[in-house]
Amino acid sequence: MSALVLSGKELASAIRADVAERASALAAAGVPPRLVVVVATADEASAWYVRSIAKAAGKVGIVCDVVDLGPDATAEVIRGRLGELSADPAVHGVILQTPLPEGCSVEELAGDIAFEKDVDGANPLSLGRLAAGLPAFAPATAEAVVRLLEHHEVELAGRHVAVVGRSTVVGKPAAHLLLDRNATVTVCHSRTRDLAAVTSTADVVVAAVGRAGLITAAHVAAGAVVVDVGTNPTADGGLVGDVDVASVDHKAGAVTPVPGGVGPVTTALLLQHTVQAASH
Amino acid sequence: MSALVLSGKELASAIRADVAERASALAAAGVPPRLVVVVATADEASAWYVRSIAKAAGKVGIVCDVVDLGPDATAEVIRGRLGELSADPAVHGVILQTPLPEGCSVEELAGDIAFEKDVDGANPLSLGRLAAGLPAFAPATAEAVVRLLEHHEVELAGRHVAVVGRSTVVGKPAAHLLLDRNATVTVCHSRTRDLAAVTSTADVVVAAVGRAGLITAAHVAAGAVVVDVGTNPTADGGLVGDVDVASVDHKAGAVTPVPGGVGPVTTALLLQHTVQAASH
Repeated sequence: MSALVLSGKELASAIRADVAERASALAAAGVPPRLVVVVATADEASAWYVRSIAKAAGKVGIVCDVVDLGPDATAEVIRGRLGELSADPAVHGVILQTPLPEGCSVEELAGDIAFEKDVDGANPLSLGRLAAGLPAFAPATAEAVVRLLEHHEVELAGRHVAVVGRSTVVGKPAAHLLLDRNATVTVCHSRTRDLAAVTSTADVVVAAVGRAGLITAAHVAAGAVVVDVGTNPTADGGLVGDVDVASVDHKAGAVTPVPGGVGPVTTALLLQHTVQAASH
Repeated sequence: MSALVLSGKELASAIRADVAERASALAAAGVPPRLVVVVATADEASAWYVRSIAKAAGKVGIVCDVVDLGPDATAEVIRGRLGELSADPAVHGVILQTPLPEGCSVEELAGDIAFEKDVDGANPLSLGRLAAGLPAFAPATAEAVVRLLEHHEVELAGRHVAVVGRSTVVGKPAAHLLLDRNATVTVCHSRTRDLAAVTSTADVVVAAVGRAGLITAAHVAAGAVVVDVGTNPTADGGLVGDVDVASVDHKAGAVTPVPGGVGPVTTALLLQHTVQAASH
């Protein structure tokens, strides 16, 4: 028997429909929701991603401005702009796109995004508030993991979830969101001894490392649910996740696809956060 | 064979000696280090704890002021005072003591302690910066867990640590500090199914729940290291941890005592953070 495919498309579509309705109401009330993406790179993949966000925003009635500071922007210039946008009442959501110019740390710079507008949860204050149980926007990718599991009615309370990857944007915030859902959470990483021994005891495995094919049948318990956060470019211009689908397919109970799993939910949540920020 | 006793007294004493030396140098340079504890409760245990901090501070040459706002202080009054202290260049460390008046959340109010002076890591920004790998003070208790393990040369990199308890002041920040030391970390809590099954696979168990006798031999692997963060008052005025020492003694490899383990290290770290803050 093959693993179930836990698509993110239906959930993303439902979120976008909700966002479109709220954006329309906000616009009618004189508050057109506005998202600003600050870019300081000439990276092509980044430019593609920003265009895809802008397009998705436009479709649901969110204005999306791209502020391109150029690949030579200094930390001071970037911080200054983030501060201005944070103070601008016509702006509701602010995203600082990566990569950044050399020497700039997204964690440091994102501290200048007001946490109320930090729709991708990049400000360390957002992460800390999340961990402390205070209102804050989670990084959209981390939240997409949990929302996708909830959408497919995967029980989390009391179950053991192994998160593979300890990044500030996915692994760590996902761990906090899962703890908040009463899961028992293990965070694994590159230094974990015998990764397969740890992950194969879990009811749910979240792969967020960025290494194609890392998670094989040896890493998952029979019937486990596998969430694939990886987006690794292939030589032919495609995209694959961190999960070796051919390997896990006959052992896992369910797997999220790449593309079409966490990705579309992530984009939809960025837009949902923006209308939430505009509603305050 | 009995478990080794991993005392915190020697480490605490070494930290205090370092602090005394630095405090003296700071005072000689015209910057006498100053810690302020803000209190808004009539709680007796709290008053006892504050006196013990003030006494420990005095012994190492740190001025410790207690600002008592009374048990009826409003959130606004507390925030206002925290803001003033944060802006006062003569104040280097600020602690907001709990419990707080009804309706006040320490996580919300501590947001008004400048993170550079947040020597007990109570501001969610401190927790977020910690998780993001940026400089910040960790909650002293969480840091004491890791420092005590390092002092006793307990290897953490690549090993499996089970943290029992998911509080904002101990469990969660301890998990981040342990991840930072390259441990594989599992966070367990009241909703964890079969706690013993999870913790008994770990190399190190950190008990931070606040329930006397919770951790028994069934919860620990043979030879495991057990860190007891609990401080539960007994009927006769004593103090016991979360670990049932009689039960684990012949199975665990090592256990931290209560009192005399994590506790003295915690107080010493609060003072060390204060001289660090004064040195900036």
